[in-house]
Amino acid sequence: MRGGRLFARGAADDKGQILTLIAAIRAYLQTSGKLPVNVKLLIEGEEESGGAGIEGYVRDHADRLKADACLVLDSGMFAPGVPAITLGLRGIVGAEIEVSGAARDLHSGIYGGVAPNPFQALAEILTGLKDKNGRILVPGFYDRVAPPPAEEKAGWERLPFEEAAFLRDEIGAPALTGEPGYSPLERMWTRPTLEIHGMPGGFTGAGSKTVIPARAAAKVSMRLVADQRPAEIVDAFAGHVLAIAPKSVRVKVNKSHGAPPVVISPNAPAIAAAKRALTEAFGREAVFVRMGGSVPIVSEFAGRLGLPVVVTGWSLPDANAHSPDESLDLEHFHKGIRAVMRFFEQLAG
Amino acid sequence: MRGGRLFARGAADDKGQILTLIAAIRAYLQTSGKLPVNVKLLIEGEEESGGAGIEGYVRDHADRLKADACLVLDSGMFAPGVPAITLGLRGIVGAEIEVSGAARDLHSGIYGGVAPNPFQALAEILTGLKDKNGRILVPGFYDRVAPPPAEEKAGWERLPFEEAAFLRDEIGAPALTGEPGYSPLERMWTRPTLEIHGMPGGFTGAGSKTVIPARAAAKVSMRLVADQRPAEIVDAFAGHVLAIAPKSVRVKVNKSHGAPPVVISPNAPAIAAAKRALTEAFGREAVFVRMGGSVPIVSEFAGRLGLPVVVTGWSLPDANAHSPDESLDLEHFHKGIRAVMRFFEQLAG
Repeated sequence: MRGGRLFARGAADDKGQILTLIAAIRAYLQTSGKLPVNVKLLIEGEEESGGAGIEGYVRDHADRLKADACLVLDSGMFAPGVPAITLGLRGIVGAEIEVSGAARDLHSGIYGGVAPNPFQALAEILTGLKDKNGRILVPGFYDRVAPPPAEEKAGWERLPFEEAAFLRDEIGAPALTGEPGYSPLERMWTRPTLEIHGMPGGFTGAGSKTVIPARAAAKVSMRLVADQRPAEIVDAFAGHVLAIAPKSVRVKVNKSHGAPPVVISPNAPAIAAAKRALTEAFGREAVFVRMGGSVPIVSEFAGRLGLPVVVTGWSLPDANAHSPDESLDLEHFHKGIRAVMRFFEQLAG
Repeated sequence: MRGGRLFARGAADDKGQILTLIAAIRAYLQTSGKLPVNVKLLIEGEEESGGAGIEGYVRDHADRLKADACLVLDSGMFAPGVPAITLGLRGIVGAEIEVSGAARDLHSGIYGGVAPNPFQALAEILTGLKDKNGRILVPGFYDRVAPPPAEEKAGWERLPFEEAAFLRDEIGAPALTGEPGYSPLERMWTRPTLEIHGMPGGFTGAGSKTVIPARAAAKVSMRLVADQRPAEIVDAFAGHVLAIAPKSVRVKVNKSHGAPPVVISPNAPAIAAAKRALTEAFGREAVFVRMGGSVPIVSEFAGRLGLPVVVTGWSLPDANAHSPDESLDLEHFHKGIRAVMRFFEQLAG
């Protein structure tokens, strides 16, 4: 513990949130000897390595996992002291664009001017996928994008969010990017994206080697929002890539499986119970937010098991989640224990 | 020796060409006991590692290198049996475009939609450098480009060159690229280029890691033709990159030193002597060609020493120059020895 924070080897943030759940259960068992509701605990440690195990478990044990509601402690506070319930998560689907030109790497002096360059082709393809405002140009890409309910969006406008401070403290770039007409929170929570993660191929060492590479690739992923479907989107993406690719190169798109987006109705009794519990435990009204990241298991709980899912947690934006020196605020840790206890009582009541 | 070819550990092609020069000198010394002209031999073995040594030597020993003409055996036959003299070499200048966005790598789920992506910025910059026909968009880039003399260009049209066979046998891509209105030989010999060699940054391993990288780069080089100047071109390049870069990222251009292009006049007596010598030794009229690659030492000989430079050689397009199994055709090797002897005699006569 340092400066009112809990640090632990590995994922202090994730482990700390699980500990609040276990501490809440233990508090009941040590005092009244029983829990206000029946609780089934499902703990996984594979988040950083794909998380395929828990998806298989949920698929194979739907009977054992029957419940009235599901609590997922994997999101966070909106800001210090401001508890939040996450009503939406973006989905994800990935692809690798492989481009090949000449049959072998070529001398750029001898052949430059006639030999296709796979990186040049990729630059043309990538700028044909997205305009300079971040709008994705894949035909049909936005067809199923459902705008957030007006009431939910109105709630976001009341959240304590300052764009200038966000740019300075969380991003650190000269400016934010993204589609005009949408606030930063809307762009992160309700708009799909297309990002480039790496471009393997050619020469990437120190110094120079002036080859025209035979092959190059671009690793991309798209974050999806309700009601986009990963398979449909990645197919449209691949079709568009092939349609706009220069004819001097061969192009192959390797598609990944992906995870669908999730939207949770604020009208479920479990959500109302969670909102009351959080508000009471933290002494400040819990807010409804969304999350730009993807938690594939939430769509398994919501979709496959048909459960109302309460996604919440006590993590802070500066917790360094999944990074070195990950931490959990101790005050939030203690209030989190109380919030879980109140949630059980609200569900029982 | 295999199939009429000389193979040697390392660079059979380069070594074989030097051997023809040494064999020619030895033949004179063993028969008439003296050479028809004075010969100064300058042999370097650093071509594959920058060749800075020989440039320094030439700079520091201009007096010792005084001569009437200079013979550089580092180019090749235009085709089997067709001897060639190279009258032009492209220059080169390189640069690395470094782009940085956020202060650290960011989670593409949480921040995708607002955080600038350096690869996206690079794709936009790269497509702003060159149009889809290969025309370079840097202002002033073509200002000093001198078209080849009509007579030289007319000579190229008579060369045995078939575009379809060239595409199939030497390139192996679906199609050639390049500026409309210029033949493939013109595009390789008389037009400047801009090539991307690698794009370091982000995640390039197997599988996926969906980070928005804080930094990415593009390694590029430009081949230059007379009378473009490397320093002027790379400055214009850097200025254009900064002018078209998206404002959400920081961009830095690291410029390299480069080498100027060379054009050699066909009217020098040494060129006429070489043409007669080659034509006689190979039994077929020697042709004038250019070379897309850069041999920086040729511009030192021509520019710093002010010598008429004869660039020729016996290498074939399929010699695998600078690659495994490099070879030199034995018939060309023997005729090359005779060509060097005739060249000395022509110069003396």
